[in-house]
Amino acid sequence: GQRLRPSMFREHLVPRPFNTHKGSFGDAGIIGGANGMNGAALLAGRAALKLGAGRIFVGMMDRDAPAVDLMQPELMLRAPAVVLDAAGVLALGPGLGLADEARRMMERALPLDIPLILDADALNLIAEDHRLEQICAGRRAATILTPHPAEAGRLLGSDAASVQADRLGAAAGLARRFNALIALKGCGTVVAAPDERWWINCTGHPGMATAGMGDVLTGLVTALIAQHWPLESALIAAVHLHGAAADRLAREGVGPIGLTSGEVIDAARAVFNAWIVQAATPLPESA
Amino acid sequence: GQRLRPSMFREHLVPRPFNTHKGSFGDAGIIGGANGMNGAALLAGRAALKLGAGRIFVGMMDRDAPAVDLMQPELMLRAPAVVLDAAGVLALGPGLGLADEARRMMERALPLDIPLILDADALNLIAEDHRLEQICAGRRAATILTPHPAEAGRLLGSDAASVQADRLGAAAGLARRFNALIALKGCGTVVAAPDERWWINCTGHPGMATAGMGDVLTGLVTALIAQHWPLESALIAAVHLHGAAADRLAREGVGPIGLTSGEVIDAARAVFNAWIVQAATPLPESA
Amino acid sequence: GQRLRPSMFREHLVPRPFNTHKGSFGDAGIIGGANGMNGAALLAGRAALKLGAGRIFVGMMDRDAPAVDLMQPELMLRAPAVVLDAAGVLALGPGLGLADEARRMMERALPLDIPLILDADALNLIAEDHRLEQICAGRRAATILTPHPAEAGRLLGSDAASVQADRLGAAAGLARRFNALIALKGCGTVVAAPDERWWINCTGHPGMATAGMGDVLTGLVTALIAQHWPLESALIAAVHLHGAAADRLAREGVGPIGLTSGEVIDAARAVFNAWIVQAATPLPESA
Amino acid sequence: GQRLRPSMFREHLVPRPFNTHKGSFGDAGIIGGANGMNGAALLAGRAALKLGAGRIFVGMMDRDAPAVDLMQPELMLRAPAVVLDAAGVLALGPGLGLADEARRMMERALPLDIPLILDADALNLIAEDHRLEQICAGRRAATILTPHPAEAGRLLGSDAASVQADRLGAAAGLARRFNALIALKGCGTVVAAPDERWWINCTGHPGMATAGMGDVLTGLVTALIAQHWPLESALIAAVHLHGAAADRLAREGVGPIGLTSGEVIDAARAVFNAWIVQAATPLPESA
Repeated sequence: GQRLRPSMFREHLVPRPFNTHKGSFGDAGIIGGANGMNGAALLAGRAALKLGAGRIFVGMMDRDAPAVDLMQPELMLRAPAVVLDAAGVLALGPGLGLADEARRMMERALPLDIPLILDADALNLIAEDHRLEQICAGRRAATILTPHPAEAGRLLGSDAASVQADRLGAAAGLARRFNALIALKGCGTVVAAPDERWWINCTGHPGMATAGMGDVLTGLVTALIAQHWPLESALIAAVHLHGAAADRLAREGVGPIGLTSGEVIDAARAVFNAWIVQAATPLPESA
Repeated sequence: GQRLRPSMFREHLVPRPFNTHKGSFGDAGIIGGANGMNGAALLAGRAALKLGAGRIFVGMMDRDAPAVDLMQPELMLRAPAVVLDAAGVLALGPGLGLADEARRMMERALPLDIPLILDADALNLIAEDHRLEQICAGRRAATILTPHPAEAGRLLGSDAASVQADRLGAAAGLARRFNALIALKGCGTVVAAPDERWWINCTGHPGMATAGMGDVLTGLVTALIAQHWPLESALIAAVHLHGAAADRLAREGVGPIGLTSGEVIDAARAVFNAWIVQAATPLPESA
Repeated sequence: GQRLRPSMFREHLVPRPFNTHKGSFGDAGIIGGANGMNGAALLAGRAALKLGAGRIFVGMMDRDAPAVDLMQPELMLRAPAVVLDAAGVLALGPGLGLADEARRMMERALPLDIPLILDADALNLIAEDHRLEQICAGRRAATILTPHPAEAGRLLGSDAASVQADRLGAAAGLARRFNALIALKGCGTVVAAPDERWWINCTGHPGMATAGMGDVLTGLVTALIAQHWPLESALIAAVHLHGAAADRLAREGVGPIGLTSGEVIDAARAVFNAWIVQAATPLPESA
Repeated sequence: GQRLRPSMFREHLVPRPFNTHKGSFGDAGIIGGANGMNGAALLAGRAALKLGAGRIFVGMMDRDAPAVDLMQPELMLRAPAVVLDAAGVLALGPGLGLADEARRMMERALPLDIPLILDADALNLIAEDHRLEQICAGRRAATILTPHPAEAGRLLGSDAASVQADRLGAAAGLARRFNALIALKGCGTVVAAPDERWWINCTGHPGMATAGMGDVLTGLVTALIAQHWPLESALIAAVHLHGAAADRLAREGVGPIGLTSGEVIDAARAVFNAWIVQAATPLPESA
């Protein structure tokens, strides 16, 4: 186990090559946004856009969702079934809800041969449906789960308190059970791999304890995978970046109390581009 | 009676503890937003978010309300009945309207065993319905009423002019009658408690005489209560903060004429976080 | 005739008195926003808000208009008939359209005993309907018309070229015919009163030749009248302010080409408040 | 063939004349915005507005599109058929889709005697329908095509790789075949005229490989043509400006990774106005 540092994913912090086009940076899909939770999917989509995914398809479960995100018209809002087919990497969960149609969407998505990021209600659906859990654990393509402690507890058949009492054990247990990369969120997010390796993240602050923050993390991970980062590097980089962005905002006087998730998106873009500039110059830090 | 000062609530101006999550900072509910007045509920919700409530549920009375606040997608817009069940603290009134369904919502909300903040049409409904008034006065959980003079007049069976002629008496009378904390808004907002104590606030300026300003105050109070501030401290802090935020904007050249309520929200967040920094350093001011 | 200067309306550039409330600053109504032109009414409403009207009711002719202006939730979007009753001063025209229901709205609004500002399609409807013209010319309450040259031509039964060939004459002719204050827009807006007095405005630049700019002017005039400025002062101040705001933006590097009408709103607020500060200090300029 | 430089279109970089009105700067039409792609048409419309078109009509193919762009209410959102009649210059393609009604819209638009800018799905429709191709090639009014390599490949009956292997040849071939100006997008956009002249653009960076960037270019071209620039100058200026705006943003720390298309719009306005200031001062650069 190690404390997460940018040097761990520095090799991927490279400027974009010339002679590329939006297709070079992937088609990211987000499925979620049930009634009353449209915003969760939009936050994930906005984060994916601002971290550089080439095209972002947001599949809104809510049939009354707006046709376009007027704040970020670059996002393509589509029916979830369309997103299933269009995405090269897919995040399920932000505002997905627990309705039957959400469950059916999971049944269709889990067998796909593309990387999946599962968060929020996607995790809750798996926790309460043994068949979904089995499909998920048996996936051949890569899977990332990003539970908070309560969600981790449900997945493990225990509870949030038990998870918090042994965060490393819980994350490792989930990684093994689902043969997946895990980000167990909270104060000191734990990332765990199925082969027992793990990392702890130290960026971030308690102002991040606010609605939508997990949705933004989901979008950040999805964007890096869309841009062909290896999954493990994408996850640890996104976790580290998520907190570093909030730290930057706190230094600039945004929050920490009342920080909004949406604000973290722009800050994450700034920090990420700064990391790339730093990585291009030889630094004593690159241990 | 005293002039309101930050030292009165300084003990609660503490940085967030680590190892918290969004559940630690409460589930705030806002019910209002009837047709033509959606914005009032959104302003209250946005204020609650930016002052740090963990999750905000906005129950829109208008069935044609948008499914998501694209400017602040962190808010969860739900049916009012859902918000009744989800909220740990509930504000009723911003844009609530006077229709029968608003009255029925009041009948369901007033008996709840959670703190209630009543504003605007929630007050008007009580003023015109003796049964609602009785239920309100008999609540066991804490109640806050935030009338402007005309609303106070209706509640007291008098009128705005009479209220203005004796603002302290009117506030104290309402506090006794409803066994509630009262913020009688206006130039020099009066806060009164049922036990005869009272405070006068001196922050703010006449640029605050604009649509939606009361909705923002409602959101600020709700956020502090969601974060477990004692009700009295939450109310006097929110009243003081509301004016201080507008004062800050005026100093920065925003308005004072044409200041918008929405702008006060960001300023309130900045002032609030600055207060916490100040409170953490020993100051001669802390008398 | 004179060149328009701030000293002409300086007496009204006074800070807000204390002990006021939003009702002190008027209920402004805007009616317009037919299908495809919602934005015109919103621009007028946003301008009225940022120039200090206490409450703004926007009556959207389009039944598919959004329920709330998410960018400015302080505006109250209502059915036009409701706005007719609620407003203390009413602007008709921004995006009103020429449909039968627009004509019927004019028939109901013109006899009202409140100040009216008529712009855009409200002027076109009058130009093509002799009965509306008669009702308008016979109004007892004050009326302001703000035509551009083509609209002025239609009202005068001539055309834009004739109007431009004699702008002073056209404005004066309209003022007499309608017993109204006229702002004939264009390069050097002419304001004319029924008693033959007239003024020419020299603020502004050709970047203002863009969609929605007239709607913003309508909102500015409406706001000042809502705040109890005499109509003549309100009109000349709004005309002067409108151009001065665009000039300020050009100096700050916004446009001039591609300047948007919405941007002028914030600048107008800044200039207006600066004027009030200047007016409070004795100046050699105050001739 | 030459490298594109501002001196090539400097003669058109002139301040606006006084005594103009919004009609002086043209009625620009954008048709696109099918379901799930509303944003593409809005981005083009916003770009046209901020680069100075007098009025912008956006014809949304999606009947569920919002009635107004709350972020840019100056845009007039209309039924596509209305836009066909209203526009003095028309762009087709941003989010147009490939449905039958898109094809029918093309059939109605291609014979119009106004300049047309064809992008995205407008190009794909032509590529798959020989009759549309013939109508397009036989147009009497001017035509501009702005394909990316894959679209160019479809139009040429080859593929993206072949186009990239001979970008100059592909652009020249399209220019001849369609008797049109071509902007073949990509790293080093090639502009080609039917008379064999061509230019290569060197502004821009790989952060522009993101959704919506082509839509913004379409809007920029459309705006310049609306303002009566000659088509060739409009196209090369817009191509150069588009990249220069993104370069400016990168210098200011916006992106390059995660740059959004919408952000390029404001930057393009700033660069364009700066060019006009520069062109007004005699410079050694004006070779």
